[in-house]
Amino acid sequence: MKAVFFDKEIKLVNNIEKPVPKENEALIKVIICGICNTDYEITKGYMGYKGILGHEFIGIVEEVNSEDKYWIGKRVAGEINNGCGECEWCRKELERHCPNRETLGIWKKDGCMAEYVTIPIKNLVEIPDNVLSEEAVFIEPLAAALEILEQLHIKPFEKIAVLGDGKLGLTTALALNASGLDVILIGKHQNKLDIANKQNVKTMLLEEVNIHKYFDVVVEATGSLSGFETSISLVKPRGTLVLKSTIAASKEFNFAPIVVDEITVLGSRCGQFKPALRYLKQKKIDFKPLISGIYHIDDAIKAFDRNKDKDTLKILISMEKK
Amino acid sequence: MKAVFFDKEIKLVNNIEKPVPKENEALIKVIICGICNTDYEITKGYMGYKGILGHEFIGIVEEVNSEDKYWIGKRVAGEINNGCGECEWCRKELERHCPNRETLGIWKKDGCMAEYVTIPIKNLVEIPDNVLSEEAVFIEPLAAALEILEQLHIKPFEKIAVLGDGKLGLTTALALNASGLDVILIGKHQNKLDIANKQNVKTMLLEEVNIHKYFDVVVEATGSLSGFETSISLVKPRGTLVLKSTIAASKEFNFAPIVVDEITVLGSRCGQFKPALRYLKQKKIDFKPLISGIYHIDDAIKAFDRNKDKDTLKILISMEKK
Repeated sequence: MKAVFFDKEIKLVNNIEKPVPKENEALIKVIICGICNTDYEITKGYMGYKGILGHEFIGIVEEVNSEDKYWIGKRVAGEINNGCGECEWCRKELERHCPNRETLGIWKKDGCMAEYVTIPIKNLVEIPDNVLSEEAVFIEPLAAALEILEQLHIKPFEKIAVLGDGKLGLTTALALNASGLDVILIGKHQNKLDIANKQNVKTMLLEEVNIHKYFDVVVEATGSLSGFETSISLVKPRGTLVLKSTIAASKEFNFAPIVVDEITVLGSRCGQFKPALRYLKQKKIDFKPLISGIYHIDDAIKAFDRNKDKDTLKILISMEKK
Repeated sequence: MKAVFFDKEIKLVNNIEKPVPKENEALIKVIICGICNTDYEITKGYMGYKGILGHEFIGIVEEVNSEDKYWIGKRVAGEINNGCGECEWCRKELERHCPNRETLGIWKKDGCMAEYVTIPIKNLVEIPDNVLSEEAVFIEPLAAALEILEQLHIKPFEKIAVLGDGKLGLTTALALNASGLDVILIGKHQNKLDIANKQNVKTMLLEEVNIHKYFDVVVEATGSLSGFETSISLVKPRGTLVLKSTIAASKEFNFAPIVVDEITVLGSRCGQFKPALRYLKQKKIDFKPLISGIYHIDDAIKAFDRNKDKDTLKILISMEKK
């Protein structure tokens, strides 16, 4: 089968064997998948990963290695972390923190940028008919945005700023706004801010921000050290800075403001798919304006090149016939 | 009067005017005060402070600028942050976050390393007769340690590590242990660990630590970037790293583990004096073994030199006759 494979460089390969589902796994024929910034980080060495890329997908279950044939023919997405099922984390439904987990296309498990992928049946969620595949593929980043609300109790009167108008920031701002919260998206690109603004999210250009220590919660979604520092300047004493993207500090970084203002810095990663599915089904967010392009898998290398472009939001890769 | 004054360098001066209490302030004749690491940071430029140093003291109220003469003759300590009294922070009894606050010996307010100091009457607490002044002077660092319990709900079964066996780490470990919590102090100096161990705190030499992602709560009390990195390796996924000391990262620092393991980094600073007073009165902690030396104010420069010594714990400065 065709697949986008990473081993020091990204390659489109044609000769990978179609995977065989292990016990209690499903074999899924992939319809569409998304490029995430984590994929881009992997191509720069993140996690030391080697294998088929991709963890955002929608597909049709073709086969199950289980007695229960319910899933065959269903259109699905799949949670990306697969835990051991037995440790304290798995018992608390936090497989995404299982120390022995596999993570689709990130750690120890081939990803979904291929014609077929296998997933544990327990990780599947069924996509409702009223949601297009190119919308449904946002379920993973949407779940990651809603993870903030699993970790943190944000009160209705609290003020939230999301810093960064890339796909992570946009998804987060749209998700928090769709949750009834008081959120403003701050970024550098009016055209991107407008996408949020058209869905009733307040927005502001970074250059116009002249308020400090104002927000109860600030979500850092720029992935840059300067964004992190701006976030610290925006958050109130005793407020919370949610760290959604990984940052490597490359210049001197001063932790003192975190201590002096008793700020909480909260790392936040993947989330549960079920709440995200509810948002998709109820059309709480329109993800279509976030799609910058859909490429056929034969053009995957072009898709990754396009993804590097600063103006690009979500790039999707389609497995369907050209 | 005599005072320890900082203006680019530490000086012992003899000709500073005795302060006059403003409305609702008390004039206090200082008995003893402590050198805190923050004082040392100030001498390296922290906060750009210029003035009389010191924020940890015990003294006798000599005069009050108020109708209410209750406090005259009382032995007291004083909370170090003085807010505007009107903002949202002051209304929540969080004067220590008032944007217009003065902080004794740190920001806009002369400190207590002098024969006399003035303090707002509302900031005074009375020291019980059963507590010696050289013990009572630990009220401020003890309050800062107990601040962790104001900010964070630590459950009785949760595991806590305090990293760093200096006076900050020792005080924190002793305070959390005295609060009934399951705490282990990790440090590099057996003689310092022994001080905690004799008061029933579990201890471990850093070189012997071979456990990772184990603790629900880790308190970083080394003030070093390597200590911060070790703290991250010790804390469980979704655990809390309490940042008690200010760190300036001077080499590349990677925030990714905070995001991947969804760690909460909680900055923590000053605390309320009343709970600390209760601990002192009930003799929950023996602070005497933490005293490395008591110097007369005439020898204040020597005291600061001694404070730089790595083996030194708390250095006190006495105003009483030689």
